[in-house]
Amino acid sequence: MDSMRRIRLTVSYDGTDFYGWQVQPGRITIQSELQRVFTEIEESPVRVDGSGRTDAGVHAIAQVAAISLHNPIPCQNLRKAANCLLPGSIRIMDAAEASTTFHPRFDAVAKTYEYRIYLGQTCPPFLRNYVYHRPYPTDTQAMAALAPLFQGEHDFSAFAATDTKDGVGRSKVRRVFSSELTVNGDHLLYRVRGRGFLKHMVRNMVGVLFEAGKGNLGQREIEARLRPGSGIPAGPTAPARGLFLVSVEYDGGTKEDRNHRDGAKT
Amino acid sequence: MDSMRRIRLTVSYDGTDFYGWQVQPGRITIQSELQRVFTEIEESPVRVDGSGRTDAGVHAIAQVAAISLHNPIPCQNLRKAANCLLPGSIRIMDAAEASTTFHPRFDAVAKTYEYRIYLGQTCPPFLRNYVYHRPYPTDTQAMAALAPLFQGEHDFSAFAATDTKDGVGRSKVRRVFSSELTVNGDHLLYRVRGRGFLKHMVRNMVGVLFEAGKGNLGQREIEARLRPGSGIPAGPTAPARGLFLVSVEYDGGTKEDRNHRDGAKT
Repeated sequence: MDSMRRIRLTVSYDGTDFYGWQVQPGRITIQSELQRVFTEIEESPVRVDGSGRTDAGVHAIAQVAAISLHNPIPCQNLRKAANCLLPGSIRIMDAAEASTTFHPRFDAVAKTYEYRIYLGQTCPPFLRNYVYHRPYPTDTQAMAALAPLFQGEHDFSAFAATDTKDGVGRSKVRRVFSSELTVNGDHLLYRVRGRGFLKHMVRNMVGVLFEAGKGNLGQREIEARLRPGSGIPAGPTAPARGLFLVSVEYDGGTKEDRNHRDGAKT
Repeated sequence: MDSMRRIRLTVSYDGTDFYGWQVQPGRITIQSELQRVFTEIEESPVRVDGSGRTDAGVHAIAQVAAISLHNPIPCQNLRKAANCLLPGSIRIMDAAEASTTFHPRFDAVAKTYEYRIYLGQTCPPFLRNYVYHRPYPTDTQAMAALAPLFQGEHDFSAFAATDTKDGVGRSKVRRVFSSELTVNGDHLLYRVRGRGFLKHMVRNMVGVLFEAGKGNLGQREIEARLRPGSGIPAGPTAPARGLFLVSVEYDGGTKEDRNHRDGAKT
């Protein structure tokens, strides 16, 4: 038997019409679409490993995935062939040979997410699937001032999904390298970069920032939620449609990249 | 019988899922959706007049329409009520009392359209319904240099739709105030402002500019198509999805607006 190639894929998707990343029986997901297409190209079952799951409705600018193939097709032809077979809402932006041991999840050293919010009265139709529309008075300056509180290493138990048994008993400590909210008129952009994230963690962080924007809580209440074993529920989970997985980072960048990644902002 | 109010509507829509503006039997169109909703609010049939039709797949940032109503509901409540009943792909951005004689089509003095093009190898999923994706070598400098040739008053017969009997025997002379193409990396933006446009005229102008971008024609061939009675077919019609109706202008703006509109750039 010839040896398998390992191929790293950079995948962009509009999550609107999918039941999230993860394969589920009887539902169309990003992973199921990718597996269908690469299985067709390989003429034999192909498993697609991702850097992590995204929920239904969550988008990705650059999710990273990997497949193992026998097919000797050059990477750029593989990318084009897959894009011909995929719906336009999922695109392979890049395909490249990787180490045979490469795993997009276990090897990831940082991830960046963005959450987009629109505060105007009427949500333009072109934004409807890509922002959280919240046409109410909001103290955006308070939200921007409090966003950096998430930076550093904290116990994010209060920000984990409550609808899952995943990771029961496992550490909920995570390291956030940067966390900032920028205000541009009626558009808010929350950007967070960290070593790893719990399920719903970013959406719950945004939910808490909104509670601050409504005047329901402040610095003290956010710090309390970051204390180990606080037991305080984080607050409402912001809707999926505003969330974008922007990038996943791996070792092998420049030294500057690594320095920056490993704590310049923490 | 009490007198009718006339209300001017500014409407934004994502044309992807509609069969264009105009009511058609058995098909969902922008106009049919608006008429359904305002008829429900008025509890009696309401006709929606638009500034002009847009084809299936064409979008609008700010189409202008008008309705006549007996219902005394304040404009801002009317806007909110209509937006609750409309799909998120159609939004009433503004509603305002207008002169009882206001007609969005006959009173319009200028319209602006944009056409968006993406030249990169792989079209990001978020742009798929909003650009013409053309991943081939294109002489964008030639396109930008030739775009202003459309400015001024010309016989646009060569740029009219050939699939329609509309306007047979009527003048195809139109006045274009400005016509420019800007290049920003892999993104091209064509912007045209004129007194009025023939069916498919903008998409055919973009089609001809692409022929120039492929090196198939130049200034002489474009000028020939603008000569009265040239009889030369314009070339391929660019796809609907890249086209946006950006604004419709009416008299009553500032004097500066009018001066600018009436020829500063022609």
